[in-house]
Amino acid sequence: MNYRVIGNFLGNVLKIEALLLLLPFITGIIYKEEESVYYLITAFLTLGIGLFLSRKKNRGISVYYSKEGFVSVGLAWIVMGILGALPFVMSGEIPRYIDALFETISGFTTTGASILPAPEEMSHATNLWRCTTHWIGGMGIIVFMLAVFPSNGNSMRLMRAESPGPQVGKLVPKIKDTAKTLYLIYIFLTLAEMIVLCLAGMPLYDSVCAAFGSAGTGGFGIKNDSMAGYSTLIQVVITVFILLFGVNFNAYYYLIRSKDRKNAFRIEEVKWYFIIVIVSIFIVTMNVRDLFPDFGTSFQQSAFQVASIITTTGYATTDFNIWPSLSKAILVLLMFVGACAGSTGGGIKVSRIVIEAKLVKEEIRRFIHPKEVRRIRLDGKSLDEQTIQSVASYILVFMLVFIVSVIMVSINDHDLVSSFTSVAATLNNIGPGLNLVGPTGNYSMFSDFSKFVLMFDMLAGRLELYPILLLLAPDTYRKI
Amino acid sequence: MNYRVIGNFLGNVLKIEALLLLLPFITGIIYKEEESVYYLITAFLTLGIGLFLSRKKNRGISVYYSKEGFVSVGLAWIVMGILGALPFVMSGEIPRYIDALFETISGFTTTGASILPAPEEMSHATNLWRCTTHWIGGMGIIVFMLAVFPSNGNSMRLMRAESPGPQVGKLVPKIKDTAKTLYLIYIFLTLAEMIVLCLAGMPLYDSVCAAFGSAGTGGFGIKNDSMAGYSTLIQVVITVFILLFGVNFNAYYYLIRSKDRKNAFRIEEVKWYFIIVIVSIFIVTMNVRDLFPDFGTSFQQSAFQVASIITTTGYATTDFNIWPSLSKAILVLLMFVGACAGSTGGGIKVSRIVIEAKLVKEEIRRFIHPKEVRRIRLDGKSLDEQTIQSVASYILVFMLVFIVSVIMVSINDHDLVSSFTSVAATLNNIGPGLNLVGPTGNYSMFSDFSKFVLMFDMLAGRLELYPILLLLAPDTYRKI
Repeated sequence: MNYRVIGNFLGNVLKIEALLLLLPFITGIIYKEEESVYYLITAFLTLGIGLFLSRKKNRGISVYYSKEGFVSVGLAWIVMGILGALPFVMSGEIPRYIDALFETISGFTTTGASILPAPEEMSHATNLWRCTTHWIGGMGIIVFMLAVFPSNGNSMRLMRAESPGPQVGKLVPKIKDTAKTLYLIYIFLTLAEMIVLCLAGMPLYDSVCAAFGSAGTGGFGIKNDSMAGYSTLIQVVITVFILLFGVNFNAYYYLIRSKDRKNAFRIEEVKWYFIIVIVSIFIVTMNVRDLFPDFGTSFQQSAFQVASIITTTGYATTDFNIWPSLSKAILVLLMFVGACAGSTGGGIKVSRIVIEAKLVKEEIRRFIHPKEVRRIRLDGKSLDEQTIQSVASYILVFMLVFIVSVIMVSINDHDLVSSFTSVAATLNNIGPGLNLVGPTGNYSMFSDFSKFVLMFDMLAGRLELYPILLLLAPDTYRKI
Repeated sequence: MNYRVIGNFLGNVLKIEALLLLLPFITGIIYKEEESVYYLITAFLTLGIGLFLSRKKNRGISVYYSKEGFVSVGLAWIVMGILGALPFVMSGEIPRYIDALFETISGFTTTGASILPAPEEMSHATNLWRCTTHWIGGMGIIVFMLAVFPSNGNSMRLMRAESPGPQVGKLVPKIKDTAKTLYLIYIFLTLAEMIVLCLAGMPLYDSVCAAFGSAGTGGFGIKNDSMAGYSTLIQVVITVFILLFGVNFNAYYYLIRSKDRKNAFRIEEVKWYFIIVIVSIFIVTMNVRDLFPDFGTSFQQSAFQVASIITTTGYATTDFNIWPSLSKAILVLLMFVGACAGSTGGGIKVSRIVIEAKLVKEEIRRFIHPKEVRRIRLDGKSLDEQTIQSVASYILVFMLVFIVSVIMVSINDHDLVSSFTSVAATLNNIGPGLNLVGPTGNYSMFSDFSKFVLMFDMLAGRLELYPILLLLAPDTYRKI
């Protein structure tokens, strides 16, 4: 393993984190909060460590090998969390460090699972930091780094390691330009949401937090009741925007380039994503019909919850824990489906589900017509064996991590639904689950051991397993 | 589709069922029960339909194509259930036909999920029939047919369609001899259990039922409290025998042939099966330690429940529904693992899990050493791509059937754990689940729609998906 390459990389990531830590500092100054000073201290500390780690230039070693790339990305996210948690503890707002770490990793991984019983009591600086971690975690800090730092030879591997989906491609020939384009679209959409929310009557601070949280499909609420207290109009605006952030960003790229515009509407994954959303909203609306005064409210509430869960955001406007079993079963299923690849959402991703569904269909067809071989196609192109096998493997590894985590969390002896959905909600980067971890609950009652398991799941889910699993494989540290 | 071939096949299956229906008839005569006459009537009816369907010989058409083979097997099991349910309704012991059908399909598929609140009140004839369906369902009626009827060209396909596991092989060159050998081992083990149970103090009738039920890894109890009322000695005997019936029968075949004897202890699947059993018993024993007066009882109860669940039998000696979450989570996990391929147990099968675990390990290794390709090996032989891919597909199709079933059963609006485990317990052919379908509950409260879904799951689980899924595919009925 080339430790100098990894150190250099981590250093650059920390420089960006130091910069981001100035946002809550400035917010704190505006609101005249003493807590803001801890963000400045942490920013300096992070910058210092960052400069120290990247003090030696990579002389001639500009290629990241697969292993180094994955390990760098995995470590970067862990270190980001470790440092990002400090202000919570320094200010005393989250007294225990492990809780602060849980909250920070939950933030960066855009999970939004909180250990806070009352986020309203936090300072403005702290709540802004919680939402800022969502925003940078959504598109990815490494993608950001690739957009701003001079890039080196094989940074595509890094982008692959952080970006979700079975096939990560370059939009434009240069990786730096791809990263820039993605961030420009991301910033544009975030600003658009902020403005629309303000116009809809949300206070500016709340709009910034809500836009950051929904852009990253994170889900930290700054209020105890998440989004339930805001007007219907604001809830509808958020529904629309979180659905947009769950779309494969390739679609937006096609949209802004006139000659590719029609391709934007031909992406199979996006088509299926909206079909799943619409069908789910329809079933849930019918199923919860009696819980709301009229059909319109039932529809609006179903739409918000379905959008929030499938995009793995995790905001709530109602306690879906008391909904009928069918609706809850559908929401749990949507947790695993997740959003589109190449979006800011988590979960298994719609494209993987679509590829698997096609594989299953082909498998059954093969029994009927054993001699006829058909290739599986996506977006008109036939998929190679390697991609198909890696999608199947991905889902199996995902299930394995899920099962092992549920067993470990069950040691806590909470009810099975709480254990099951706490893992589902963290591994898929959603936030709330059912029962104890439902929209009105939080994660504070778990043991430290369970919290570590769930933090592992959040990171594994956000980075699509391998960068985190590789850190655990003894083979990774062995010299060849 | 060649309907004559299918008709002929169904006819032969029904002839065997008619013969089996004489067992409860004779039992009824011994106990002087009026109900027994309905078994005779059904036997005649079944024989009549069997003779009618097989009236035309297959002139020259002796080859079953893949499609016809699967469809024949799927249909045979459905028809067997439809006719086998008649005596329950005729005698009035199960008044509603759909409940009787549920009970019969649950029997043949060796699930053991019952709609009866009080099996003790049934006649001896009826309880024997319930356990007989387990016995024939365990090794398979088609395997039985292949052992007794003159076999034709390509009957290996039929055996494959009914026998569990990713690689069904012939033990001896002739398929008829393989089928005979399997049944001889099966009969021998069943008789052995009967005798040992009698020696341990169980009444003869109970011994016959318990041996039939455990041989097929079925699980219908003839008492309300399943096996809880019997002595510890009897419970231990049953623990040992159900574990033996969960072993790949190839191991027994090797054991009886002196030159292969050492191979019996080299089957990787069997090794892992016992490792999983031992580790699970250990964890559960520790976890339920406080619920029992002493360590010995805790161990014995854990061993029974673990053995009963992993072999997908489903007998219970205690209400594991009140066990701590960790133990329940492990039991639910074992439901999916299931027994060995080539045993009478259900579930995904240990060999598939082992192959998948190796695949996952290889996948992670591939990220570390991308250029080094290693083949996945089982029992010293490297597996071909086709087998590996079909195992991955199998698990994915299995998950899909599972998820769709849970959603459909959730319409009933029972709690999520009941819905989830009712599907887990039927698709994996176990019987009891948790909460409403726990060891002290039964399946009578489900709607007819849910009962059909669960019957579908039982058949899909027992026949390893494809024979049943093919019946639903429109392509199956299309002319080429």
